[in-house]
Amino acid sequence: MNRAKVTAETGSSIILIERMFNASRDKVFAAMTQKDKLERWWTGPGHTNRIVHLDVRDGGSWHFIQTSENGHEFSFHGSYHMVSPEMTIQTFEFDGLGERGHVAMEKLELTDAGNGTTKLQVTSTFFSVADRDGMLHSGMEEGMQQTYDRLEEVLKEDV
Amino acid sequence: MNRAKVTAETGSSIILIERMFNASRDKVFAAMTQKDKLERWWTGPGHTNRIVHLDVRDGGSWHFIQTSENGHEFSFHGSYHMVSPEMTIQTFEFDGLGERGHVAMEKLELTDAGNGTTKLQVTSTFFSVADRDGMLHSGMEEGMQQTYDRLEEVLKEDV
Repeated sequence: MNRAKVTAETGSSIILIERMFNASRDKVFAAMTQKDKLERWWTGPGHTNRIVHLDVRDGGSWHFIQTSENGHEFSFHGSYHMVSPEMTIQTFEFDGLGERGHVAMEKLELTDAGNGTTKLQVTSTFFSVADRDGMLHSGMEEGMQQTYDRLEEVLKEDV
Repeated sequence: MNRAKVTAETGSSIILIERMFNASRDKVFAAMTQKDKLERWWTGPGHTNRIVHLDVRDGGSWHFIQTSENGHEFSFHGSYHMVSPEMTIQTFEFDGLGERGHVAMEKLELTDAGNGTTKLQVTSTFFSVADRDGMLHSGMEEGMQQTYDRLEEVLKEDV
């Protein structure tokens, strides 16, 4: 099983993530932008994911709500700055923090790595080192590993 | 004349800006979100500013083109993550860099500072220290000082 490599230098407000997938770039991009696929992988273990709003285009926006087995809801939303298989840039906010403004901007780059594999590189930047560290300490890394494993499964199923 | 205070720590990917304006928060917010006012101040000296697209709302987007006296065009665009007088978060890209992806995310906070004055705090974050330093070395600071001086003039005119 592939693991995502996470780099977060001390004192920086940036997180770098790199992960290989056993699928073509077009398939990975489809899984990241299509409602029926996002519902299947973009969620925590045992959670369901409801796509409240999804307008995947330059200047569009998105809103997803995950629901845990015991009924707790976790809402996330953001805006798309640009969308393409090569590079997608979007904002990201978890709506359960009690105050607004702790927003990240994410750059997702997909590169054909040969033999039907694709490299995903994610650059996340925050408004402060404290916001970045808050994300790191939220259990984000383990959740992300499991989420990317589910994405890999969805890519296998959709032959 | 007020001057903006710019803070950019070495090795950080963040720029902090602070500037006082002699107008109420509602007036400053109006000048930052209304087409006729943006056309008058959001531009370089001797440049005109054409508002190609302006959809000021959570999930909206914007596109402005400045034209210099000798006819050169400078295009900028971005998406709004959230919009309110207290806090506006948006992405920002200069379209003349030759490659995509050097995007900033800006948080603009307006605070009533008493006696009819308003404090503007801008936090800009970039995908790398190099992107941040590129913005700093582009002459952004002097241009910004002149642009904020024009905003102050527009606020005076609109009694």
